[in-house]
Amino acid sequence: MPERMLFNAFHMFAVSHHAQGLWAEPDSRQLGYTDPAMWLDLARTLERGRFDTLFFADVLAPYDTYRGSRDAAVREGMQFPTGDPSVLIPLLAYHTEHLGYTFTQNILQEHPYPFARKVSTLDHLTGGRVAWNIVTSFLPGAGRNLGYGGLPGHEERYGRAEDFTQAALKLWLHSWEDGAVLRDRARREFADPAKVHAIVHNGPCYQLDGPHLSEPSPQRVPVLFNAGVSPTGRAFAGRYAECLFINSQDPAEAAPIVADVRRAAAAAGRNPAYIKVFVPQSYLLAGTEAEARRRHTELLERQTVEGNLARASVFAGHDFGLDAPDALVGDLRRREVSEPVRKLLATTTRDDWTLGELILSRTNKRVVGTPEQIVENIARWRDAGVDGINLEYVISPTSFTEFVDHVVPLLQARGLMQREYRPGTLREKLFPGGGPRPPRDHPAWELRPRCGPASGR
Amino acid sequence: MPERMLFNAFHMFAVSHHAQGLWAEPDSRQLGYTDPAMWLDLARTLERGRFDTLFFADVLAPYDTYRGSRDAAVREGMQFPTGDPSVLIPLLAYHTEHLGYTFTQNILQEHPYPFARKVSTLDHLTGGRVAWNIVTSFLPGAGRNLGYGGLPGHEERYGRAEDFTQAALKLWLHSWEDGAVLRDRARREFADPAKVHAIVHNGPCYQLDGPHLSEPSPQRVPVLFNAGVSPTGRAFAGRYAECLFINSQDPAEAAPIVADVRRAAAAAGRNPAYIKVFVPQSYLLAGTEAEARRRHTELLERQTVEGNLARASVFAGHDFGLDAPDALVGDLRRREVSEPVRKLLATTTRDDWTLGELILSRTNKRVVGTPEQIVENIARWRDAGVDGINLEYVISPTSFTEFVDHVVPLLQARGLMQREYRPGTLREKLFPGGGPRPPRDHPAWELRPRCGPASGR
Repeated sequence: MPERMLFNAFHMFAVSHHAQGLWAEPDSRQLGYTDPAMWLDLARTLERGRFDTLFFADVLAPYDTYRGSRDAAVREGMQFPTGDPSVLIPLLAYHTEHLGYTFTQNILQEHPYPFARKVSTLDHLTGGRVAWNIVTSFLPGAGRNLGYGGLPGHEERYGRAEDFTQAALKLWLHSWEDGAVLRDRARREFADPAKVHAIVHNGPCYQLDGPHLSEPSPQRVPVLFNAGVSPTGRAFAGRYAECLFINSQDPAEAAPIVADVRRAAAAAGRNPAYIKVFVPQSYLLAGTEAEARRRHTELLERQTVEGNLARASVFAGHDFGLDAPDALVGDLRRREVSEPVRKLLATTTRDDWTLGELILSRTNKRVVGTPEQIVENIARWRDAGVDGINLEYVISPTSFTEFVDHVVPLLQARGLMQREYRPGTLREKLFPGGGPRPPRDHPAWELRPRCGPASGR
Repeated sequence: MPERMLFNAFHMFAVSHHAQGLWAEPDSRQLGYTDPAMWLDLARTLERGRFDTLFFADVLAPYDTYRGSRDAAVREGMQFPTGDPSVLIPLLAYHTEHLGYTFTQNILQEHPYPFARKVSTLDHLTGGRVAWNIVTSFLPGAGRNLGYGGLPGHEERYGRAEDFTQAALKLWLHSWEDGAVLRDRARREFADPAKVHAIVHNGPCYQLDGPHLSEPSPQRVPVLFNAGVSPTGRAFAGRYAECLFINSQDPAEAAPIVADVRRAAAAAGRNPAYIKVFVPQSYLLAGTEAEARRRHTELLERQTVEGNLARASVFAGHDFGLDAPDALVGDLRRREVSEPVRKLLATTTRDDWTLGELILSRTNKRVVGTPEQIVENIARWRDAGVDGINLEYVISPTSFTEFVDHVVPLLQARGLMQREYRPGTLREKLFPGGGPRPPRDHPAWELRPRCGPASGR
């Protein structure tokens, strides 16, 4: 059982992440997403609450499955527009001492050579508090926007991810030897060229010579997050992930995926217990359960149905615009409906909802209750062997400030959350005792340069 | 004649930019280049001195022409390693109110879609204080490191630059109409989808659909720097550049290039007088001319010859390692030498220098004198029709603090430097009266989306 739980604040550099329409609530600061002050206040709140990292999701295209159009996403600021999260991190890190910063970047976006430099720069500027969430993209529009015509197929994307990740890991770990940096003022020698190696990565998708443009940063390799769930994705995560993000609301559902990834890790020669598993959870709290439920119902009513359908259609792989989302559930029960709708109708006895409202309620699962009840939920995840929570906000920053003020003290009293940060880099905080770099059984260490002359051209 | 001169602090996110070896001087903070505090102090000094921007040069490979090896560059930290300057900018902008930030990114590095988002994000976070220096790369290693095998040819690079710049400009200017962003809490409408357009850029090198991932930032388009000098480069600069960086030490030499670019601007339908021309200058000052000369000679002696040869070999397109750089000039006069060396020997009557020392003195031209003499130099540039100076440091931050403390007050008294910043974005500060966006005669406005449906997929 995990010693204590880990906590990421799950966010996007955008107006709206999961709970569509609630950016319009009076206590929301989400419209201020282009204002550094909003982010600084959030980061300080999270550090006060001893969160482990601020986790930035990211997408590179609007959601356009619903009604074959991006209109609902654009109208509601639903994960669109989105800013580049990487450029926020040094600012936020400068104004916090311990909080880590996890940013998502998909492997189609950028060549690994400048990407590796960017990450090393972030790791330098933050004193080793950066994590990279490795994703392969899921929106067809992202593939079109990056010049691939459309989204490359799943296996091709994972092939690219393998190549990209190996190239980056070689640059981070194997280009500059320990001791390469001299900083010798007396001899006017900055580095020893004999210890700075070319990499000559000649992969199927990415080629580069190196050497790495950055001297070794505190962690060298960012803490590696991944969310692979397909068979290929689980194998990839087993090889590389240090933190695994499982998009599951149910420990029983998550368990076989986690077991599979741990098996893949073992097969790759890694300690399978090393990998930290995170699940997303959204909490809505109040002083009493009844009050929390009332608040939840009220907020659901204030959420926007169209933006939610835009998101739900992408994740269902089905355009709910084809299903008369304004029709009443009672009426739909008497009609021929699509398979996804048939399954949804089976989840409720209410007939007075529209289909859109039913989908809204089913795709906005929240743990609703008192702080004590939320602590119980977190304890259950811990008991199920899950290591951490990606805390999805309902309203930002309200969801985080309420959690910090009312839930964190109870979690700390139960030993479920750290009272103080551990010293050192993010990796040392998350994986105590192992030092700032990936453990020696991580396959990154085996990726020796194919032909890496020390010095020379 | 320019109303007042403009000033950029010319820097790299690296240990050493132009004056090799002087990072080892006791007053240098250059070894602290990975420390945010060093950069914040520098930015504050520049703002105190009313500089217009902090200008980051950049390269994506070590210099490896000299002796066919990168060793000298690696040993001396000569423009290697280099950090990613973009991620520093929001931090520095947050701690300054007016200073602008110019960053260099070559068009081979990244696809224009995420690049355009990054720049818009920077423009949002800085309140409109970002400039982009458009470059096409000159180091063969950069081409190899970005997966191009080698550096694409000059004309191909400019073809890419044209395509890249057009794609980015379309995203910045033509994807989101003015008035597209509603931020309407009452109606829960963030944006009007009818005013957010696809771009469908289908260029020879870059393809993307859009819409732009960012809502319009204060400037929409970063202030555009370029340093094109070849005939193709001058035509490119004439079309797009708002600020032109001419690597010239001599007004007479710069004049025909500037005239050519202004002709190209006129041919592109632009006001040729709009373009601001910058030259690099390096100043070494003291209370008396004699003291300044003594200091200059001392510092030249403390500079490292090898690192300087590494840089000089790239810019000469000639490996000075083939020329016995340790040999005395007097001896070389009696030998058969390469054409570049023959020309260098003709520039001196001294025989006691080594060839390396001769090259050092010729490639480290400085204006040496009292603050008053430096002001005279700047006035001469102004009289020659040059608009601004990219101030190259000898030692950082010393060169900047001395300039701010001793030269700036004299410049201000002469009307050669602003006493206070103008309000508004960087573009409004540099080009008063024209508003935050490029002027209406800039070709960016003509780049209409090829087929940009409002709303829809």
